[in-house]
Parts: sequence; C-alpha cells; structure tokens
Amino acid sequence: MSPTLNENPLREHSRILSVGHFSPDVIVTNEDVCQWIDSSDEWIRQRTGIESRRRADAQTQLIDMAEAAAREAVERAGIQASQLGAVIVSTVTFPYVTPSAAALLAERIGATPAPAFDISAACAGYCYGVAQADALVRSGAAEYVLVVGAEKLSDIIDNHERTISFLLGDGAGAVVIGPSDTPGISKSQWGSNGAKWDAIGMTHSLLDLRDIAVGAQDDPSMLAVAQTEAKLWPTLRQDGQTVFRWAVWEMAKVARKAVEDAGIEPSDLVAFLPHQANLRIIDQMVKELGLPEHVYVARDIKESGNTSAASIPLAMHRALEEHPELSGGLALQIGFGAGLVFGAQVVVLP
Amino acid sequence: MSPTLNENPLREHSRILSVGHFSPDVIVTNEDVCQWIDSSDEWIRQRTGIESRRRADAQTQLIDMAEAAAREAVERAGIQASQLGAVIVSTVTFPYVTPSAAALLAERIGATPAPAFDISAACAGYCYGVAQADALVRSGAAEYVLVVGAEKLSDIIDNHERTISFLLGDGAGAVVIGPSDTPGISKSQWGSNGAKWDAIGMTHSLLDLRDIAVGAQDDPSMLAVAQTEAKLWPTLRQDGQTVFRWAVWEMAKVARKAVEDAGIEPSDLVAFLPHQANLRIIDQMVKELGLPEHVYVARDIKESGNTSAASIPLAMHRALEEHPELSGGLALQIGFGAGLVFGAQVVVLP
Ligand SMILES: CC(C)(COP(=O)(O)OP(=O)(O)OC[C@H]1O[C@@H](n2cnc3c(N)ncnc32)[C@H](O)[C@@H]1OP(=O)(O)O)[C@@H](O)C(=O)NCCC(=O)NCCS
Ligand SMILES: CC(C)(COP(=O)(O)OP(=O)(O)OC[C@H]1O[C@@H](n2cnc3c(N)ncnc32)[C@H](O)[C@@H]1OP(=O)(O)O)[C@@H](O)C(=O)NCCC(=O)NCCS
Repeated sequence: MSPTLNENPLREHSRILSVGHFSPDVIVTNEDVCQWIDSSDEWIRQRTGIESRRRADAQTQLIDMAEAAAREAVERAGIQASQLGAVIVSTVTFPYVTPSAAALLAERIGATPAPAFDISAACAGYCYGVAQADALVRSGAAEYVLVVGAEKLSDIIDNHERTISFLLGDGAGAVVIGPSDTPGISKSQWGSNGAKWDAIGMTHSLLDLRDIAVGAQDDPSMLAVAQTEAKLWPTLRQDGQTVFRWAVWEMAKVARKAVEDAGIEPSDLVAFLPHQANLRIIDQMVKELGLPEHVYVARDIKESGNTSAASIPLAMHRALEEHPELSGGLALQIGFGAGLVFGAQVVVLP
Repeated sequence: MSPTLNENPLREHSRILSVGHFSPDVIVTNEDVCQWIDSSDEWIRQRTGIESRRRADAQTQLIDMAEAAAREAVERAGIQASQLGAVIVSTVTFPYVTPSAAALLAERIGATPAPAFDISAACAGYCYGVAQADALVRSGAAEYVLVVGAEKLSDIIDNHERTISFLLGDGAGAVVIGPSDTPGISKSQWGSNGAKWDAIGMTHSLLDLRDIAVGAQDDPSMLAVAQTEAKLWPTLRQDGQTVFRWAVWEMAKVARKAVEDAGIEPSDLVAFLPHQANLRIIDQMVKELGLPEHVYVARDIKESGNTSAASIPLAMHRALEEHPELSGGLALQIGFGAGLVFGAQVVVLP
C-alpha cells in the first residue's frame, strides 16, 4: 500500500486585490490611419467607436509594458512581489519562441522563484488568466497570483490592410488575485469554438517564413521571388462580419449565463467591463443583457482601441480612477477573440 | 449590499486518469547528426546517453502529433472528449502567433466548447500543465482536464550547431486529469529563475526577422546583407554547462522537496520520471535522491532524445507499457528548462 499524498489545503474564496495599467505614449488618430487605408474618421467612429489608439514606440518593448502594469498592481495589492505564488502573462506578441515573457517579468519585478508562464488565449487571455488564478488560489496552489494581459499588437499588423489593423492598440493591464473571506470571483463561463479558428488569425505560418529564410541561405534569389508574391512577415487578418455576429449573439448569451451562474441579477452589477473590440458590440450587449442605466459601461475603446488581452484590466483601471465609488461593487467582465475563445466572470471590484 | 457570488464547489482530490503518446517515424541516429556537426557517436552516447531521436517529417505537423496523443489519452480515460472541462497544450513550436493550438485541438477531438489555451513553459510545460489541471479540478472549475505536451523542435533548430540541436527530438504526450476519491497529485514544487533567462533560448528575436522582412519590401538588397551577417530564422542555443550544473544541483533539491512535501519517502516511489534532458543528469539525480534499486527510472532519452514538454508523458507511457505493474504506484515527475523554469509532483500512476 502506498502512503497518502499531501495536497495543498483548499481555500474557500479568492478576489481581485488590485489593478495596474500601462498605456504607451504614441497616439494614433483616425487621420493617421486614413493615410494608410482607404477609410475616413467618420466611418471608423460610426462603425467602431474608435477615435484614437495608443501604440508603443520601438524602444518600448512588450516586457516593459507588462512590467509597468505589474508593478502598479503588486504595489496596490499591498504585497511584496516575493509573495507571489504564480505569474501568468497572457500575450501573443512576445517576440521570442522561448523562454516565456513571464519568467523574465518575474525576475524583473522580484517575484523569482515564483512559477511563471505565458498563456495564448488572445483577447480572452485576461479572463482565462483570472479563471486560472482563481483556481490556483482556491485549490491552495498559490496565495497571490499576478495576471498580466500585455500586447504590442503593432508588431504583428500591417497598417495598410483594412480588416483589423486600424482597430488595434498596444498596452498592458494587470491584476493581483488573492485569498478572500467572501466570494470575490464567480464561476467562470469560459470556452472555445475552434470551428471558427480561421475567423481571426495570421496571414501565414511562421514556417512559411522559415522555409524562405532557410532556403535563401542556399539560393538568395528565393527571397526576391517571395517578396513579389507575398509579404514575408505574417500579420493579422479577420473576417470582421463573422466575428461581429458571433460577438453580438453568442457573447451576449455567455455574459447572461455568467450573471445567472453567479446567482445575481443584472441590476446587482455596478459595472460592465467587456473586451473593447467595437463600440457597437458593446452597446448591443448592453441592450441584450438589459443592463439598467446605473450600470457603468466601459467604453475605453474610444481612446485605446482594441488592446486584446490588456483591454479589460485597462478598462477596469480607468473605471476605478474615474469612479472610485465603484470599488467593492460587482462587475461583469467578458473577453473574446481569436480561437475563437471566450471567458466571463462576475468579480468584486478591488 | 451586493448579493453573494456563486462559486464552483471545491473538490478534494484529483488524479491522472490516463496517458497518451505519439512518436514520429523518422529516426535520426548519431551517425546522421555527425554529418552535420563535428562530433562522434561515442561522444554523444557518453555525454548525453542519446543513441537516436525521433523527428517528424514535413507532413506531420505539431497539431497532428498533439491530436494523436490527446485521442489516446481521452480514450484510455474512458470519457468522451465532450466531457473535457479544459484543454491545455504546452508547446513553444506551434507556428502561428495566434490563435492557439489548443483551440484547434479541442475542435479536432470534439471537445468544443471547452476552454482551450496554450502555455509557454518550455521543458517544464507538462508539469506546469499538471499543476494547473490539478487546481482546476480541485477548485471545481473543471471535471476533466486534458494536458498535452507537444513539440516539433526540429522546426526551430539548426542541425549544424553544436550546443543543443543534436539533443532534440519531436513528439507529443498527453494525460487526462480528473476527480479522485483519494489524493492522486501532490502539492506541486514549481518555479522559475529568470536570472538565467539567457541560458537556453533563441539566437535572436522574431522582430529582428520582421525588421529585415519588412525592410526588404522597400529595399530587397537588405536581405542579401542580412544573409551574409546572420541566419534569418531564429534557432535554439544553450549554455550547456550552466544548464547542466543547474539541473544537477538545483533540480535534485526541487525533486527532494517534492517528495518531502508529498509526505512520503523516496522508497515509497515505484518510478522516477524526470524530464529527458541528459542521461548523466538523470543518473546524478537518482544518486542525490538516494532512490533505491526497486524504483523504475525512465531513460527514454536513449531512443527519443529530448522532446521538451512531451518527454515526461512519453516516458510515463513507455514505463506503463513495459511495466504494467507500476500502475497505481507513486511516481515522481520533474520537468525543467528554458526560462529557467521547473515543476515537480508525486503522482499516482494511471
Ligand atoms: C471590422 C468591422 C469594424 C467592419 O465593420 P462592418 O460594419 O462589419 O463592415 P463590413 O465588412 O460589412 O463592410 C461594410 C462596408 O465598409 C467598407 N469597409 C470595410 N472596412 C473598412 C474600413 N476600415 N474603412 C472604411 N470602409 C471599410 C467595406 O468595403 C464595405 O463597403 P461596401 O458596403 O461599399 O461594400 C466589424 O466587422 C467589426 O468590428 N467586427 C468585429 C471585430 C472584432 O471585434 N475583432 C476583434 C475581436 S477580438
Ligand atoms: C550539452 C552538453 C551535452 C555538453 O556536454 P558537456 O560535457 O557539458 O560539454 P562541454 O560544453 O563542457 O564541452 C566539452 C568538450 O566537448 C566538446 N563538445 C561540445 N559539444 C559537443 C558535441 N555536440 N559533440 C562533440 N563534442 C562536443 C567541446 O568542444 C569540449 O571540447 P574541449 O574539451 O576540447 O574544449 C551538456 O552540457 C548538457 O547536456 N547540458 C544540459 C543540456 C540540457 O539538459 N538542455 C536542455 C534542458 S531542457
């Protein structure tokens, strides 16, 4: 007979203790965008709600943005980075195949030797991180978990294309999740629909680029041929209408289910913090959820654009800056994006 | 006063229900390797224990290997893929920036709409996935979780370099983790040391490649210059001695702590399943842990090489095929690699 294994002692509840943010300096206006694509300030405002977006300059790396947001979140949580039991970075734009951004971030902020890993769940990445952090805290695997959503999307877009690039911005947001005496994060509604894997994604595989790069070592003329046929560097594309319809119909259902499963009514919410993908999607969700007037709705997209995994914590940070009275109230957060993937929770605001 | 949020009901225990595997067809011998680098079959055997490694052909994609291993694990768990509450793929070689491999895998095996995400934790990725799956099951967030470690490392190596490429193979391993009446996974010992972020990693950033690829659109001669100065495609390198010393000293400590924290003695183990990085590292750990003779030690590296996140589940699969009597016994598993990151648990073998 084998002896019984020790496990971590379970913990009843977790909650978000703090939020941190970083928005880069460069403001890219709709006028700027219209130099690159055939569009207009009016069209972009009407169809997306975006007035401008923030982008990082060449000196500002993804890891710098993640670090700034993380430091603020840790400081506001009132803990030392050395108390972190896990560091989770949600990103698709860290430009190294390996090691992870999280291992570097943990070292930079003084969280070593905490376990550190990156997750790939696109615009649902922050909500996926919250679901995991909640599980780590409640299962006793960690006391405090740092969840960072950070993207430098400007590295993987082609400004001259019209399906997605004009929507996107750069930034980072972070939360610290820790133990709580009362429930602070509801049962997550999270999932995927890989049947729509192609709806948002890259123009081509990194291996296509590799074949050209490696092949050119023997035959440099390969590169010239490749250049005339297609751009070498893979960039983002989407089927906007497919994503739009899915977001409006399916995500409203997911959001409603998250509220129901939390055991509350929409009128119990003080804030709605949806992924900032398109103002029309946000407004449509507000309608379908029947959110009462008093509920604060995040519309950070106007000045930030779509910052993928960073958009919800950025929106949360802004909500609490502008309306400190929301603190302690219930907020519904929902992320969705490439995969397709989605995640939603009701959380007690820090 | 806000109403109280519903959370997932906690669950006491989790365990590994099954293991699946996929090893690709192409056998790369030490003789093959010696056509590319200045080395010898004898040197490689003596210093690493590797006699041959398996690699995937161009037709066999990472996702195909992940799918094969996943299907076997799900079938052996005696569940339907639709019962999976999460799909975690640990990989650094999926060649798309976004979406994730996991979303595609979930769709391929019929696990949609399970939440699906990739994690980046290199050779510790499988143990990191087990730590997360254990937390998801015990916190009630999921009933069954699929953890896949899959790598096509041959895509990111340069066969003509001598620090790491000759060690590496391709493959995939998978486990299903689910509820248990008794403890099946001990408290994880997992962590990172980003101070050694440079010890294993890529020759250069994907952004260096991007700058050349994008720049060449205006000035094709840039490519020719880049070609003469450096190879375009980033590949893996390591400081072998730094990693070797860290693995032998620090990882033996982590393994010992995992056994202690599990509340057992080394003699209670039936198997030791370390990451297959180097046979000398394995033998040294066995010595430092004081493992008695009766403990089965995985030495799959001889025929598989180092398959990163796939190595431990591949070794577990092999152990159970060759020694079915190990089933139900306690195994110590430990993964470590680029980051640097590490993870260890004592598990009840499926
Ligand atoms: C991308 C998006 C703004 C496009 O808006 P839309 O209303 O669906 O636009 P359509 O693709 O139907 O095109 C309507 C017209 O606008 C034009 N158009 C498309 N993109 C344009 C642009 N960037 N600027 C100006 N005109 C544009 C089309 O050519 C079309 O013209 P036509 O009527 O003369 O044929 C919208 O689909 C969207 O936001 N989708 C979801 C995006 C999202 O959230 N993605 C990220 C998820 S994380
Ligand atoms: C890579 C590794 C096998 C190299 O073995 P090592 O014993 O440390 O070798 P060293 O780097 O000290 O080099 C010793 C000699 O072998 C030579 N050598 C190095 N690599 C060689 C190779 N592939 N073939 C033949 N000779 C080699 C060196 O040039 C040196 O020669 P010298 O004594 O004439 O100067 C070993 O360091 C290792 O396994 N490290 C850990 C790797 C690992 O686990 N990485 C992945 C972690 S997930």
